[in-house]
Amino acid sequence: MSGFLPRRMKFWGWGYEGEGATPEERAYVHANAAKRYGVTDFNDTPPREEEYELRAPRVQPPASLAPICSTQRIDRLVHAYGKSFIDAVRIFERRVPNPPDVVAYPRDEADVVALLDWASSNDIAVIPFGAGSSVVGGIEPVVGGAFKGVVSINLQRLDKVLEVDRKSRAARIQGGVMGPHLEAQLKPHDVTLRHFPQSFEYSTLGGWIATRSGGHFATLYTHIDDFVESARMVTPKGVWESFRLPGSGAGPSPDRIAIGSEGSLGIITEAWMRLQDRPRFRAGTSVTFTKFADAWAAVRAIGQAGLYPSNVRLLDRVEAQATGAGDGSVDVMVLAFESADHDVGPWMKRALECARDHHGQPDMDQLDSKGGHREGSSGAWRNAFIRAPFFREIMTPLNVMYDTFETSTTWDRFGDFHQTVMDTLHDVLKRECGPGSSASCRFTHVYPDGPAPYFSFYGKGKKGGMEQQWWAIKRACSDALSQLKGTITHHHAVGRDHMPWYEKQRPELFAAALQGAKNAVDPKGVMNPGVLLKSR
Amino acid sequence: MSGFLPRRMKFWGWGYEGEGATPEERAYVHANAAKRYGVTDFNDTPPREEEYELRAPRVQPPASLAPICSTQRIDRLVHAYGKSFIDAVRIFERRVPNPPDVVAYPRDEADVVALLDWASSNDIAVIPFGAGSSVVGGIEPVVGGAFKGVVSINLQRLDKVLEVDRKSRAARIQGGVMGPHLEAQLKPHDVTLRHFPQSFEYSTLGGWIATRSGGHFATLYTHIDDFVESARMVTPKGVWESFRLPGSGAGPSPDRIAIGSEGSLGIITEAWMRLQDRPRFRAGTSVTFTKFADAWAAVRAIGQAGLYPSNVRLLDRVEAQATGAGDGSVDVMVLAFESADHDVGPWMKRALECARDHHGQPDMDQLDSKGGHREGSSGAWRNAFIRAPFFREIMTPLNVMYDTFETSTTWDRFGDFHQTVMDTLHDVLKRECGPGSSASCRFTHVYPDGPAPYFSFYGKGKKGGMEQQWWAIKRACSDALSQLKGTITHHHAVGRDHMPWYEKQRPELFAAALQGAKNAVDPKGVMNPGVLLKSR
Repeated sequence: MSGFLPRRMKFWGWGYEGEGATPEERAYVHANAAKRYGVTDFNDTPPREEEYELRAPRVQPPASLAPICSTQRIDRLVHAYGKSFIDAVRIFERRVPNPPDVVAYPRDEADVVALLDWASSNDIAVIPFGAGSSVVGGIEPVVGGAFKGVVSINLQRLDKVLEVDRKSRAARIQGGVMGPHLEAQLKPHDVTLRHFPQSFEYSTLGGWIATRSGGHFATLYTHIDDFVESARMVTPKGVWESFRLPGSGAGPSPDRIAIGSEGSLGIITEAWMRLQDRPRFRAGTSVTFTKFADAWAAVRAIGQAGLYPSNVRLLDRVEAQATGAGDGSVDVMVLAFESADHDVGPWMKRALECARDHHGQPDMDQLDSKGGHREGSSGAWRNAFIRAPFFREIMTPLNVMYDTFETSTTWDRFGDFHQTVMDTLHDVLKRECGPGSSASCRFTHVYPDGPAPYFSFYGKGKKGGMEQQWWAIKRACSDALSQLKGTITHHHAVGRDHMPWYEKQRPELFAAALQGAKNAVDPKGVMNPGVLLKSR
Repeated sequence: MSGFLPRRMKFWGWGYEGEGATPEERAYVHANAAKRYGVTDFNDTPPREEEYELRAPRVQPPASLAPICSTQRIDRLVHAYGKSFIDAVRIFERRVPNPPDVVAYPRDEADVVALLDWASSNDIAVIPFGAGSSVVGGIEPVVGGAFKGVVSINLQRLDKVLEVDRKSRAARIQGGVMGPHLEAQLKPHDVTLRHFPQSFEYSTLGGWIATRSGGHFATLYTHIDDFVESARMVTPKGVWESFRLPGSGAGPSPDRIAIGSEGSLGIITEAWMRLQDRPRFRAGTSVTFTKFADAWAAVRAIGQAGLYPSNVRLLDRVEAQATGAGDGSVDVMVLAFESADHDVGPWMKRALECARDHHGQPDMDQLDSKGGHREGSSGAWRNAFIRAPFFREIMTPLNVMYDTFETSTTWDRFGDFHQTVMDTLHDVLKRECGPGSSASCRFTHVYPDGPAPYFSFYGKGKKGGMEQQWWAIKRACSDALSQLKGTITHHHAVGRDHMPWYEKQRPELFAAALQGAKNAVDPKGVMNPGVLLKSR
């Protein structure tokens, strides 16, 4: 790294250099790979920078921007891929055909403006880069069209909380701040954003907003969307900033078109975010069900009761067993309430009644322990969830496939929907990966009108063939979601990987409208080309 | 009326012909007008159709559309104005310079498509018309540009609930259905939309969505926005429909650009709406405060506690007295909880603790009575709120001015904000209307980060000069809101009246983006010209 940032992120895996799975976790993964897939070669040595032959940079920054730009190999490698399964496959196969030509590290918004001016005037495609945790090809420099080159703009130096308004519980925050540093800056003010996507430690506020990230709360404030009080976005035509308003009815919300724009309109440099008081009251437990149909009926009942639990995640028995939250004979609901203001006992009591109405068995010991959300089944699941991204870089070199996809659908369709997706997944896994494959489902977020199911799968990979295998699985499952009219993504974003199905999902005239909007703010079409809209 | 609809709406006032203030209400208004403003002429005879000289229709529908179109005077009069104060002034002054040339009553979506085809191909401006209760000039046929004529499209024949999905608590509903008929169709399914704007009886679902209407719930689900699961909109380029999804992260939400588009992009013919179970548990009371600063601090505390009351409306002492909810010495918080699922006692108990922390005095008798929301101060205010629109047509001919405007701001600014707006309002009222004027403030909706204050004013009007007087007041107050960076409208929409301030509020580049989007779906610029965007 050229010294622009204090720590270097791994180009081959999750997190910073020096971080990764513990020896115990590694031993566990190896044992499983041996048992399930007969793996005997456990060489998972990480790739080294010098093993990559990169195409020479096709463009160079002008002198005025040179001090914030790098064309060094390590910077280009770090910005070549996100953190998806096929990103890991290609990195371990030492294949990087499309690195950015230049990586820029703006110090402030003026730098961002100057960079977009340069790119826009010189036919250079721009990839806005938060912390690179995209799992959908959102930051991969495959831009199509006829650009002279690609610049990835790393926003991590825009990392400050600029203002805290304690009275309104809001803060003005720069887009490039990563989760932990954001929370550390809020802590002295005794407030928190409480938006904890799985990528929390290695993703940025601007990235969350641009991709409609899904966070901590399983109900009510599921996506980042509702936390945005006002957003500031730099586009090639200039800066766009909305008023700070708790609510408004003045035309379509300007923020709601910036939210989810995935870098295709501009770069979110700042936002006023709605905050929470730090929770002081908590109640958490898990509830087991012997029938999956009962389990989701209970989730539906709780989701429609107006209780707004912070957590009401359902793990099917396969998922529960895999994460140590169950023994494989029961489906497990992880249930939690939290409040900064009041004891949540009455809320939990009523939610458990709903669960019991559908034959759920709550773990009352765990509930009584008060630290319930970090203990028992709930705690086991939570820990597995946070550590999971580190497993990719030790499983991929062993040719073990593991990936996930997520969607949402309404309750009236959920039974058939779930059956069809699971059947599709089992079928394609059998075809592509053979025996030892497994598939499971959990709910990450729950709405009154339906759940957001999240599917995980494991299978044996073929050395050198995993990218093709993965696409066969991805296509089969995405086609199924598309036919069932589920969303192609609930919170992983569209990126480049989901484009074929996104194009079927969104209204065609909305695409035309979005293209019209883009033409107005990005007339040269340089912003993240190929994401949301076809490249020019 | 040409017999397209079962009942004829008044062109000079609120509701259907035959409806209006009771003799008691009328006597009360007259007595007040006499006492405050020395009114002696109480002639408020409604205008008659034949008193209006209307310009001859400039266009005629083609034969294929003739069966659903009218050029009769009464239809054109009903569609000439909304229900704002200056609409009433101009109607009572027998001034209707801009009636629509044609009024169309489509029977179904195919008719809407045909009408937009005709208009778009023939340079005819289109005014989408729900039930005409706009108070911001949203449906007034003043379209600018160089159109051959104007057609108002009345959607009231699209009035069906087409499908109810009880499991997901959602229904597919046509855009032209009015509030009561919508709820009547949901009732057999034991569900309710529970969206009750003041105009509920005389406004439509499509109108609510197009204008981001504010409803029943004072917290959480304040605007119609969050109830929209999917929307279907006919534009001049065709139909745009989103998937039914409880939540999604696939790009910017298509619905969020249709929501609030005020007819400038298309006509919302159908939507899947999220519903509620009918409430079975209720608790309501009112809380009085001797200091306004305490009152809004209490509202803020409750709004930030995560309790989500259905009502937490604050009436300042002037507003409370005017509506019979107080004696003029205290500010009154109207507080209510409701649930279909559980006793709301613990919620109310905690909210009252918050109120007492700020020196609030709850009315415990009213609380114990269980029917609290329809009794005592709360009941008095609720009744006044629903009847108020009928008073306009009896006060206007007496030259008594009465109007309101609404906004929102964050808590950190609210103290100064409120003071400045009230000072501005008092100043301009003194200047324009002289003694006997009054001004008051209430909160209609409350967010964790700030309130939505709603200002009301009364003053003595000058016969024949009220339109000018009103604009002087409107300009002064809107300039103040604009300088204070409050929204120009929280839930009354932009329409034509708010355009100068809306243009300052929204980001300029957002206007360009919205124009780009409009060009894509309405290339001839015929949809509600002059609303949200300048006329072509």
